Parts: sequence; structure tokens; C-alpha cells
Amino acid sequence: MIGIVKEFQLIESYFTGRAQSRKDVAVGIGDDCAIVEPAVNKSVAISCDTLVENVHFFPDMPASALGYKSLAVNLSDLASMGAEPAWMTLALTLPEVDENWLADFSTGMFEIAEYYGVALVGGDTTRGPRSITITINGQVPEHTGLTRSGAKNGDWIYVTGTLGDSAFGLDLLRGKAQCNEADREYIINRHYRPTPRVLAGQALRTLASSAIDISDGLVSDIQHVLKASNIGAMVNVDKLPLSKELKANVSDELALSYALTGGEDYELLFTVSEAQKGALEIALAETGVKFTQIGQVCTGGKLNLLLDNQPFEPINLGFEHFN
Amino acid sequence: MIGIVKEFQLIESYFTGRAQSRKDVAVGIGDDCAIVEPAVNKSVAISCDTLVENVHFFPDMPASALGYKSLAVNLSDLASMGAEPAWMTLALTLPEVDENWLADFSTGMFEIAEYYGVALVGGDTTRGPRSITITINGQVPEHTGLTRSGAKNGDWIYVTGTLGDSAFGLDLLRGKAQCNEADREYIINRHYRPTPRVLAGQALRTLASSAIDISDGLVSDIQHVLKASNIGAMVNVDKLPLSKELKANVSDELALSYALTGGEDYELLFTVSEAQKGALEIALAETGVKFTQIGQVCTGGKLNLLLDNQPFEPINLGFEHFN
Repeated sequence: MIGIVKEFQLIESYFTGRAQSRKDVAVGIGDDCAIVEPAVNKSVAISCDTLVENVHFFPDMPASALGYKSLAVNLSDLASMGAEPAWMTLALTLPEVDENWLADFSTGMFEIAEYYGVALVGGDTTRGPRSITITINGQVPEHTGLTRSGAKNGDWIYVTGTLGDSAFGLDLLRGKAQCNEADREYIINRHYRPTPRVLAGQALRTLASSAIDISDGLVSDIQHVLKASNIGAMVNVDKLPLSKELKANVSDELALSYALTGGEDYELLFTVSEAQKGALEIALAETGVKFTQIGQVCTGGKLNLLLDNQPFEPINLGFEHFN
Repeated sequence: MIGIVKEFQLIESYFTGRAQSRKDVAVGIGDDCAIVEPAVNKSVAISCDTLVENVHFFPDMPASALGYKSLAVNLSDLASMGAEPAWMTLALTLPEVDENWLADFSTGMFEIAEYYGVALVGGDTTRGPRSITITINGQVPEHTGLTRSGAKNGDWIYVTGTLGDSAFGLDLLRGKAQCNEADREYIINRHYRPTPRVLAGQALRTLASSAIDISDGLVSDIQHVLKASNIGAMVNVDKLPLSKELKANVSDELALSYALTGGEDYELLFTVSEAQKGALEIALAETGVKFTQIGQVCTGGKLNLLLDNQPFEPINLGFEHFN
């Protein structure tokens, strides 16, 4: 008597039974809304990102990596605010039901969801051109959330991890670059399975003056900070942290260009005052995440890239970041 | 130096400047996350819905109606839990930048956002086949959220408003039905601009035993309640509330079939015990929303449709609800 198409119930079966349980989820997936109970004296951080096939990922991307990355990019947004991951919704649009694809996608997504303690509390499955929208909720102690707007003249500029691997990985996948067989898996993984710096972001709370995650590329993202903070910056490109796998396979100039403009690193970029620098370095070191000081905030409102104290212009790699 | 495509900054300009302000939004749209501050002793209700072009709406749907409806369907989910609307994110995927379309879409969306006091706190604009995913957050006093699972034997079954108009409106738009010119605008509007029963939902808190919104059609949605509550129901189809505009244009049997299986009414279906019936009717009457008792919960786990005490089988109207 009912017109519900069974195959979409099938899709939901890949997600509803496997959601991480959390004590603060009063009503979980399956009703009209989820109901969650934020902790006392904590604010809720909210972010959403959409990945569209043929725009943000290619049809041949392994479904498990896509599931993993779809959530990782949202967790990276929480990390940049210093928030602890909590709840998520998944809006999944698919052209058809492919059980193997669904099994792999959900396995990849739940792998990272479980690692960070994220509960899937709701969603919508629809028919159409393949895309994934995840909306993530995190918690942050009141008045401690990091933003882009607090950088001040003289603050030191840092990044976590290494930069440029992801963009090089994308070029490898597209056949636009080549690398040693031994390094290939590492580089491709940096593109397919970025590590959101969740613990590092929490360590930065009350210490960093601003933070952002590097999604469009260092040059692009640092300018979001400079604009929001109404300030300028000097970045010493010779200090940019590069992986040995990247350096082993491309020229120095190209490696720096990947690091500056490639994007999708999902590392954190943050600023810290001289007064908080020591405390921040101790707090970050405890997380085990690598971090590197790459420059300093200055007046003037502009970004100045310097190599051996000379202006540096990266190679135009043709990456387009139209969201 | 930066590769951000200017036209997508243009899209964002239609949304960032016009977001409703709320005192509980500590960080609004424009950073990596929004940060919101839920009220003390309130839980957060979360829901998300995706509308895909050519699946959930046709390309000729006026953009202002699409903007309105995209948020209305999410507000309806909040209503069915008894939650007060608070914050939303918008994931908008568009094939190209059409300024007239954007102006109309955002005007329709903000019209209903402002009416219900919803702040747009984040989002993502991407290029691809047109679709809209809204994730809505509401607040509900702790332990008062309505669910589908509380219906008990003997409870009375009610619906708000009138049923069937929206599906008839869709058939009018598709050229599959006809109506008097005088009634056309009313019927089409019921399809394009459904009224989420937000205040009625709040009035039901602590009084109704279960609630759901009617999105797929009464027959389909009531069975979600029966399954979640492990119970059956008798619905007297001659009691179903039908608009005079629907009755004036189709046979009685067809009108009942639209009301039972058409869907997209976004009215509330709820159950209430004999003990709470009087208090609920008083509370609902104060909201000014029309409501009608249409049947009663019974044992047996099945839905029984009765017309003059005889089993009633609706006409198969061919509506497919594959989400």
C-alpha cells in the first residue's frame, strides 16, 4: 500500500545500524529530528561541506576514501575552531544503489567517525547526481572558540604537518605528474585521507590568536586570516614544511608551489603572540603533531612571500578553487 | 595571486549580509564554523533535507518558492518534534551563476527564515547539478521532544490543517489535473509554499504521545508512527480534513486519495491519550491552527482505513516517494 522505494531503505541500512553511540544523543537517527544534549558551559560549533562528483572528486575515487575524506574535511573545520567533534548529519545523493559502493563508503566514513567519537544522528538519502553534504557539530568551552579574526602585528605564524602533498597526489592521480613507486602510496593517501588536526586545534584554544584550516592552499587561506584580522604577513617560504616524499619527486620550486597554492592539505594555519608562544609550543608538542613556524604577522594588509629575503612568486599550477 | 573564482564570492554575497541576527550566535557565517550558544536546560534538535532538481522539484519552479520550500520542509521536521527553530546551514549546488535566480531564491528563503527567527550560520556553495541541502537546528526543553514512538492503544489520532492540496497542486503543475481558475493559486501555493506547523508542534509538547509531519502522505507517515510505537490504527477517512478548493475540483474518492497518499502536505499527525485530550485541544486552539480528530490507535500493528465502517482502498495515484 505504501509507495516507499525499497532500495532507499536499503541505503539507509548501511548507516542507521552502525552509528556511534553517545550518551548525549537523546533521540538518534530515524525520527524526524535527532535530539542532542550539549554539555553545560559549552557552545556548539557548526560547519557544512559539500563534495560533488567531477568537481571535488573523480568517479574513480575509492568509495572508502571518499567516505573518509567527506567527514575528514568537516572535522578539519572543527579543528580550526578548537572544537571537539560530537554529532553529524549526512545528506547523500546517489544516481543508483550500488551495494559494494555503499559498503565501502560507509566503512570509510565510520572508520573516522568512530576514531573521533562522532555520532551520525540524521540525514537524507536522495536520488540524483552523486554528492555528499556533511554537517558537523562540535563542542567548545564557552568563549574559547578560535576564529580567523584575532591575528595581531608581531604574532608568529605556524602550520601543522607538511604542505603540498595532497595537490601533488591529485596531479599523480590525474596523470599530470610522476613519482617513485615507493612514495606513491604515501602521497596518494595524503590526498585521499587527510588527517584533520582535531587534537592540535583543541590544544590551541586560549593560546593561539587566530586559526584556519588549509583547504584552498596556504596563500589563499592565509589571506582569509589577514582580511578578517585586517593585518599583513611575511611568510618565509624556505621554512615551509615539506615531506621527504614530496621533495624526492619534484624540484624545490615546484614543491614550494604545491605547498603554497595546491590546497586540500587540511593542516592548521595559526598565529600566536610572543607572550603565548612558549605555552603554545608545549601544549602542541604534547599532541604529537608536527608544527613549524613559517613567518610573522606585520602591518600593511598584504601577504609577502620571501625566499632568502627576496620576493617569491609561486608557479601557477592551475588549481581552481571554486568551492 | 589567488585562484578563488569571483562568481562564487558573488553567490555568497546573496546570503552572508542578510542572515537573521540572534544573540545566541557567537560566531556567524564566514568563519570555518559558526559557534552558537544553546539555552540552559534545552536540548538541540537537528534535521537535514535535500531537494534535488528533477527529483524533488522541476526546473520551472519559481526560485523564490524553492527557497521558501527548502527551509519550510526542514522547519516542518522541527515542528514535529516540538522544537523552536534557531540556526541553519545551507549547502547550495548550482550549475551556473544566475543573479536573478539567486536574488529570488534568497528572498524566498529569508522570508520564512525571518518569520521563524532562524539564523543562517554557515554553508557551502558548490558547482554542480542543482540541489539544496539545509540542516536545521532547533531547541526544545530537555526531555520534552516529541517522537514517533509513544503512541498507545486507545490514543486519539489528529492532523492539523487540510490534506491533499499539495499533491493536487503538483498534478495541476504537471498538467495531469485541472481546476477552476479561482482555486488554482490557492492549490499551487499549498504545493509551493507549505506552512510548517511550528507553533502547533510546540503546543503539543508534554501533551501529545507521538508526532510526525506528513511528507510522504498520511498512509505512509502514519505507518512510521505505528512501526515505531509497535501498534495499529483505525482512520475514518470520511473525517479527513479537505479544503473546499480541493473538494470543488475533484471527486470525493479522488480527494480522499490525494489526502491519503499524495504527500508534501507538511501538516502534523499526532496522537494523544484520552487523559490529555482536553488540555491538548485547548493548547492547540490557542495557536489558531485548525486540527481534526481522524481516528484512534488500536492493537494489531496494522493501519485500517474505514469509510462508513467499510474498508477503504485509495486510488493509486502513482506518486513515488523515493526520498
